[in-house]
Amino acid sequence: MAVSLLHTPEGVRDIYNGECARKLAVQDRISGVFHLYGYEDIETPTFEYFDIFNKERGSVTSQEMFKFFDRDNNTLVLRPDITPSIARCVGKYFSDEDSPVRLCYRERTFTNNTSYQGRLKEVTQTGVELIGDDGSGADGEMIAMVIDSLKVAGLKEFQVEVGQVDFFRGLTEEAGMDGETCGILRELIENKNYFGVEDLVSGRKMEAPLKELFLKLPELFGSLEEIRKIKSMVTNRRSLAAIERLEKVQAILELYGLSEYVSYDLGMLSKYRYYTGIIFKAYTYGTGDYIVNGGRYDKLLEQFGKAVPAVGFAIVIDRLMMAMSRQKIHVKTGAKDCLVLYEQEGRDGAIGLGRRLREQGKRTVLMKKSSKKSLEEYTKWAAEQGFGKLVWADGTGETADIRLQSPGKAGG
Amino acid sequence: MAVSLLHTPEGVRDIYNGECARKLAVQDRISGVFHLYGYEDIETPTFEYFDIFNKERGSVTSQEMFKFFDRDNNTLVLRPDITPSIARCVGKYFSDEDSPVRLCYRERTFTNNTSYQGRLKEVTQTGVELIGDDGSGADGEMIAMVIDSLKVAGLKEFQVEVGQVDFFRGLTEEAGMDGETCGILRELIENKNYFGVEDLVSGRKMEAPLKELFLKLPELFGSLEEIRKIKSMVTNRRSLAAIERLEKVQAILELYGLSEYVSYDLGMLSKYRYYTGIIFKAYTYGTGDYIVNGGRYDKLLEQFGKAVPAVGFAIVIDRLMMAMSRQKIHVKTGAKDCLVLYEQEGRDGAIGLGRRLREQGKRTVLMKKSSKKSLEEYTKWAAEQGFGKLVWADGTGETADIRLQSPGKAGG
Repeated sequence: MAVSLLHTPEGVRDIYNGECARKLAVQDRISGVFHLYGYEDIETPTFEYFDIFNKERGSVTSQEMFKFFDRDNNTLVLRPDITPSIARCVGKYFSDEDSPVRLCYRERTFTNNTSYQGRLKEVTQTGVELIGDDGSGADGEMIAMVIDSLKVAGLKEFQVEVGQVDFFRGLTEEAGMDGETCGILRELIENKNYFGVEDLVSGRKMEAPLKELFLKLPELFGSLEEIRKIKSMVTNRRSLAAIERLEKVQAILELYGLSEYVSYDLGMLSKYRYYTGIIFKAYTYGTGDYIVNGGRYDKLLEQFGKAVPAVGFAIVIDRLMMAMSRQKIHVKTGAKDCLVLYEQEGRDGAIGLGRRLREQGKRTVLMKKSSKKSLEEYTKWAAEQGFGKLVWADGTGETADIRLQSPGKAGG
Repeated sequence: MAVSLLHTPEGVRDIYNGECARKLAVQDRISGVFHLYGYEDIETPTFEYFDIFNKERGSVTSQEMFKFFDRDNNTLVLRPDITPSIARCVGKYFSDEDSPVRLCYRERTFTNNTSYQGRLKEVTQTGVELIGDDGSGADGEMIAMVIDSLKVAGLKEFQVEVGQVDFFRGLTEEAGMDGETCGILRELIENKNYFGVEDLVSGRKMEAPLKELFLKLPELFGSLEEIRKIKSMVTNRRSLAAIERLEKVQAILELYGLSEYVSYDLGMLSKYRYYTGIIFKAYTYGTGDYIVNGGRYDKLLEQFGKAVPAVGFAIVIDRLMMAMSRQKIHVKTGAKDCLVLYEQEGRDGAIGLGRRLREQGKRTVLMKKSSKKSLEEYTKWAAEQGFGKLVWADGTGETADIRLQSPGKAGG
């Protein structure tokens, strides 16, 4: 055998033993939250035409997509992001629907990042899109669902940071900045590069309060009270409306009883062109990156023929699972109940016993005893594997039950 | 908008509305069966190195795989089949395990077939692999699990056809046929081309009973009794052992109480090189193709460094769902319980009510009433959407409940 046959490509991985069952259990719990909020399942293809995800619509650069060709030489890509696919579906199947559409998904996404970043190239994302509702109630529902989802997953300590891209856009409009300058400034602010911001802003002609707001931006995070303090300095309508929107969202989260999990950050910006209002990310310890990201994208759907507002988020399940594992949060999954071990003469009885146990809902493995292994060895092995009980069918027609004490195998 | 933006590539599709929830529900039920038999979940990457699936190991030709390159110019393929991936995992992670390993999965697979075949290029498959057990008990367990899975999915009428590739191999060995001739003959038999078989066989020198067996092969299907009748004609050990194995499997399925679902077919052959013993397919009406296929592959694992026998199967969920839909088999999924419709003044109360309903496990949608739509229109819409109840929160602090009669929306 070539050893290379055992290898998987960079950035993708196998998930097995208890880890996979735990991942599936967490996904199921989160889907349960989505369903409670009335969201309906949707699945889209793993690959689509490149155009769906191009720079006007997608969140990943062309260089970071996995591309290939169909038989007619069209460029296909492995879905780097799910939102544009769902926007396409809504444009296609829900074009006549004038009430809000609520959709949820659980899919793999693919990013062809350079491997030295050590990031996964394939991850599972589960999330929702709420299409056709521009209200702060929809924004609040998103953040409430993020919090409910992380809680039901078992996470205890996490924070949702909420920004509003219109605040920054209002300031740059007021300052008359072109797109390129906005981009440079955005990066400086995201990197909390105070000197860089000062350098860029001081070289431009603008009113003193506006200049001060730009300089303050990297530190405009924390409670909403902190952010409100600068309201009097804001003179343009768009930036002011952005803050007022956050105030409404905060009021709604108080009604949900969830405001303690949320903080605000006007310096949180996004390179994704499709965001138009609130944006948010959730963080916990055990992973340096965000575990949830989302936001409002009121202009995306019109590219797919249906000019309606929308808001959504995605939970990166792999990062959530890694964080939970590092935080030693136990995820309960179905246990293996019974190992029925038999000798050839006991086989018929063992099969019948297995049937009856399974009819009672007991997870039951049938196994023929190898002559090379003792009953003691099997007992030890079964306990290690997390079985609750071993039944020994030796062919006399009698069976013997051996209760097992699991030696604390994780995930049991 | 370019209309093409709404298109998906040939052979892939979106699954939405109730269809997706039904698909997920059926998958969950089938996973439940796998877990009852003690199988553990595993996930492997969507793409792998080409070598994993090459012609010695895979079931799909190189031309029918979706291929692309990683950043180091290695050829990657979208997984056309799951068995080789799991064989790789077992070779890698379970190399020291000497007891049987039971794994189950639910994954997408990809075949770059030519589109005029009208076949799906992406399908969901759910299945199991039982590794390290060469007994007829393992074969029987597979077929019992197929039957239990299809029953729990809701299918009433289906048939599992079981073949044994060693019967044909024993005959061709005895006849001294080379690989190419075997391949031609295999195709003739699979196509039930009697004249072709006769033509090929009559031109070769062999004993009369052997010649007769080849000619009989296309009609050697039905009950095991039919097949047993030709036992006396079989003179080579391998073909005889193949029939004896089927007899053992039949005896086991009788113990499971499931033999009524099974028929046998010695003319069922496979172009997949990896099958070594029993092979089987399940059929139902409403789809021309098989909905389950599987078999024994005792030589595959040694290519991944662990020389152990194995057997497994995969259920093609998309075909199963299509057949069930055509058979009008209803799949129960979670219903939408309550639409809470509110005016701005009633919003706070509506959010509180939504919280309480969700805490009770009720699937609840909050929706702000548009001034353009009457309460009657909302009531009609909610009924169409399958909601059980509409609660109207008009801002007086009072709410009014309106019970809805669903107009028989499918999948509810």
